[in-house]
Amino acid sequence: MTFQLGDNQYGKAETRLVRVDRGDTHSITDLTVTTTLAGDLTATHLTGDNTGVLPTDTQKNTVYAFARDGVGEIEDFALRLARHFVDSAPAIERARVRIEQASWDRIPVTGHSFAQAAGTRTATATYDGESAWVVSGVRDLTVMNTTGSEFHGFPKDRYTTLAETSDRILATAVTARWRHSEPGTRDWQDSFDRAKERLLTAFAATYSMSLQQTLYAMGQYVLSGDDGLAEIRLELPNKHHFLVDLEPFGLDNPGEVYLAADRPYGLIEGAVLREGAPGAGLAWW
Amino acid sequence: MTFQLGDNQYGKAETRLVRVDRGDTHSITDLTVTTTLAGDLTATHLTGDNTGVLPTDTQKNTVYAFARDGVGEIEDFALRLARHFVDSAPAIERARVRIEQASWDRIPVTGHSFAQAAGTRTATATYDGESAWVVSGVRDLTVMNTTGSEFHGFPKDRYTTLAETSDRILATAVTARWRHSEPGTRDWQDSFDRAKERLLTAFAATYSMSLQQTLYAMGQYVLSGDDGLAEIRLELPNKHHFLVDLEPFGLDNPGEVYLAADRPYGLIEGAVLREGAPGAGLAWW
Amino acid sequence: MTFQLGDNQYGKAETRLVRVDRGDTHSITDLTVTTTLAGDLTATHLTGDNTGVLPTDTQKNTVYAFARDGVGEIEDFALRLARHFVDSAPAIERARVRIEQASWDRIPVTGHSFAQAAGTRTATATYDGESAWVVSGVRDLTVMNTTGSEFHGFPKDRYTTLAETSDRILATAVTARWRHSEPGTRDWQDSFDRAKERLLTAFAATYSMSLQQTLYAMGQYVLSGDDGLAEIRLELPNKHHFLVDLEPFGLDNPGEVYLAADRPYGLIEGAVLREGAPGAGLAWW
Amino acid sequence: MTFQLGDNQYGKAETRLVRVDRGDTHSITDLTVTTTLAGDLTATHLTGDNTGVLPTDTQKNTVYAFARDGVGEIEDFALRLARHFVDSAPAIERARVRIEQASWDRIPVTGHSFAQAAGTRTATATYDGESAWVVSGVRDLTVMNTTGSEFHGFPKDRYTTLAETSDRILATAVTARWRHSEPGTRDWQDSFDRAKERLLTAFAATYSMSLQQTLYAMGQYVLSGDDGLAEIRLELPNKHHFLVDLEPFGLDNPGEVYLAADRPYGLIEGAVLREGAPGAGLAWW
Repeated sequence: MTFQLGDNQYGKAETRLVRVDRGDTHSITDLTVTTTLAGDLTATHLTGDNTGVLPTDTQKNTVYAFARDGVGEIEDFALRLARHFVDSAPAIERARVRIEQASWDRIPVTGHSFAQAAGTRTATATYDGESAWVVSGVRDLTVMNTTGSEFHGFPKDRYTTLAETSDRILATAVTARWRHSEPGTRDWQDSFDRAKERLLTAFAATYSMSLQQTLYAMGQYVLSGDDGLAEIRLELPNKHHFLVDLEPFGLDNPGEVYLAADRPYGLIEGAVLREGAPGAGLAWW
Repeated sequence: MTFQLGDNQYGKAETRLVRVDRGDTHSITDLTVTTTLAGDLTATHLTGDNTGVLPTDTQKNTVYAFARDGVGEIEDFALRLARHFVDSAPAIERARVRIEQASWDRIPVTGHSFAQAAGTRTATATYDGESAWVVSGVRDLTVMNTTGSEFHGFPKDRYTTLAETSDRILATAVTARWRHSEPGTRDWQDSFDRAKERLLTAFAATYSMSLQQTLYAMGQYVLSGDDGLAEIRLELPNKHHFLVDLEPFGLDNPGEVYLAADRPYGLIEGAVLREGAPGAGLAWW
Repeated sequence: MTFQLGDNQYGKAETRLVRVDRGDTHSITDLTVTTTLAGDLTATHLTGDNTGVLPTDTQKNTVYAFARDGVGEIEDFALRLARHFVDSAPAIERARVRIEQASWDRIPVTGHSFAQAAGTRTATATYDGESAWVVSGVRDLTVMNTTGSEFHGFPKDRYTTLAETSDRILATAVTARWRHSEPGTRDWQDSFDRAKERLLTAFAATYSMSLQQTLYAMGQYVLSGDDGLAEIRLELPNKHHFLVDLEPFGLDNPGEVYLAADRPYGLIEGAVLREGAPGAGLAWW
Repeated sequence: MTFQLGDNQYGKAETRLVRVDRGDTHSITDLTVTTTLAGDLTATHLTGDNTGVLPTDTQKNTVYAFARDGVGEIEDFALRLARHFVDSAPAIERARVRIEQASWDRIPVTGHSFAQAAGTRTATATYDGESAWVVSGVRDLTVMNTTGSEFHGFPKDRYTTLAETSDRILATAVTARWRHSEPGTRDWQDSFDRAKERLLTAFAATYSMSLQQTLYAMGQYVLSGDDGLAEIRLELPNKHHFLVDLEPFGLDNPGEVYLAADRPYGLIEGAVLREGAPGAGLAWW
């Protein structure tokens, strides 16, 4: 009876980096960087021979050292790091660098003061020695429509108690990731701004018969606004808001008082693809 | 050997309420409400006689039922609830209602679409059957200055390794609570807006020799902008940003690359009082 | 119009320390230490003069350095640190050191292998230059009785919907803190073991008409088992378990299937005092 | 320019269920259940036609209703639910049910009292209408060796600062999942107990040159103890413990005082396969 090593990877998770660019006014870049490497790492698993194992501590150091030259857009920074690890570490055949960027607004009192804003921008770059691909995204973009959402026509069985509704609150915390067709340098900021704007717009403007319909509408609208995107994946938790029954208190409740529930929650996941776009089979989640 | 019941209180924590006001455009009020009651509750503790125990479930129901009439400012809503519990439940002598309000921005595509923003507004109203007092506040207001902060002149002992610095990042997540001199109806929104604006402005504009100095400046500036405030208390975690030593990599680091640390963190707490303001001895934390 | 500094304190929160004692078998002490100092700190608040401010970085260093001599019981370690700060830092008049200790079991394969267990032991020592007091405790001790709990006889009003029950699940996550009458050296471990055992026993053995009754029984039983304790305070969230209505599916539910709710939750807080015990007025929360 | 729907699925996440079995002594089963369905769901995405969408509310109801008949082992309960959704909902072609089970110990005072213990048991069953597969596992099993761990022989580059070590603390929080070769009924509890015991034993007993070596040893030892397992996947965060430099305080530190770091952390992921085991290509993560 014998065993073998299967898929494996390793890296440094959640290196916290803040870069300050100092001029007449300052700007800040607030990142959490996770580097993940794969390659011929059988030796360390089977015998503890670490000849091929670039330490995760070195990966962390590299993140900080590379930031000395400037970070720029997180997609570019992730690509730089991913290429570096594959090109310089002999045993490493694939590197994936995931970055989360916190949002900060200026406090318009000085040129060096900031207040944190909601939402997180994300980017993941993967490089395998030959080709690279870049996925941009957003996390924790919490949105709500107080009307314009129905849900009915679903199948009923023995376990159905949900009433059909022609008017409900629809709320979710958007996690979305969109894959660029080409890894080459783009205007990432402009692409991001358009995608985020379109996520918000499509969420708001879609008269929704299901959260799935909203998901598809959001994905399609993002892709249709940027020819450089091949695919988008969305994860939309359905943050349920239940109309509270006030009848026991002699009160009606015409769509005014809701209980916002934590758990359980619906979870809708789906992808929208541009037909004929390259790289449909990539494992980029 | 005998024992006795000491201070005690009970209530319902974290009732999640979203109220929708529907007109040509909708507006939402997103609250987490905690009610806490105290009074003559010896019987339930000693014998399980619940004659005086207004159930926490009823407290939750009351929150939802009262919202049917509208919520308005959270200070008013907290006061309404606190007065109700004391006035209607015979055994209850003191009620404290704490509300946290999530921030939402409009998505300017429809009149009924919203995106969650950073920061939380808070209010606590306490009523003891005779007098009431109201504390307003903010939580999780995360701010950073990339310069304008020094720290030196501190005592050195055997355990000192911290270097003095004439230029460091100063970052914190502000929790602040300010007590109103009178519980009567005010323009709470205007008062809140001024206080928050002044917290941001004082944080940004204060050239800081210590986070304590910044704390006092923030508190004083809030009080000086609103004659209706008696006192303010601030909790300011010092979110350390350490300049990364890049020398091992042959690089300098002229204030550009920082490690943002999680733990441990400094924690600075302090109050600023208006001289002669009423109610200095109130236990209102 | 003038302002003044009110109560204030500062310190280093959540210093993470693991000490290893190495002999034939190893033992570990896994602590999170928070030090809080107060004294004459007006200067730093008003002018940024840090002459009296022992840096929080030095406080952290002191925690690690003191651990070199051994930690022992967390009550003793907290006392050592609290006395040191007051005795050595001229401006510091009161120090409070709070320690949380994680629980680890041995993996009985080697003498140096451990697996983390549930529950956290806590201790807080306060020293003001003259007297000291010590509070021991436990956090996150989650317990459940599946029967032996009733709740009825409570007042009904317009907002009551809760049904009376003669059999319900009672579950809570115990936070308890007990104050020792004398700060002098005790067998803290023995005292802790007895208190924890009695918390569990009293929770289990009390036939409960209200969570308040259970709280008092737990507190009284802890005090009655240790003459060295003056007072105990408990915080008991009521972790509601709701019987699921299975009637829509043609099923009964004789106390078998429950929904475990997150929010809102009841929160019961109370103290039990030994009559005539010293220090009843201490602010030791 | 046209778009198409890609992979998609939906379900109800984190339904909280506690089942009580009442006899002379009671027993409890504390579960968090996530159901995820996939199938021909194009209509709801493109047009909002919900004919095929079994509501997530119904999925939740089904979880509770099925618990009325008893839960048994979580692997069996997950399989029952997965088969039900595929067999009864026409549009659903694949169901995945993930269950997390909290650990509770008895309080040996009554037959109906329990205290929560550390660690979480997990199971995921997937059914596609023809075949089923079952993955069991554990989450948050936090373990530490205070010696018996080295790390050296790794490649050095410009960014290396990590010193080689022949004695370090090795600590991790194990997430492990093992796939059963056959979905048929097994003695899941016995299989789980053996796997968990072997994870602990292999972690403790492996003299480790890298966390990867420990990972492989743990995986191999689990598989070698249970012929019914085809594969195991492990995620091992390297919970770094750094020896504190006490030299500035005139102290040595012979492996006694450590700083337990939060972030960043190493993250080691890998699989061990039984050679020739079926289903190597299954997407079961």
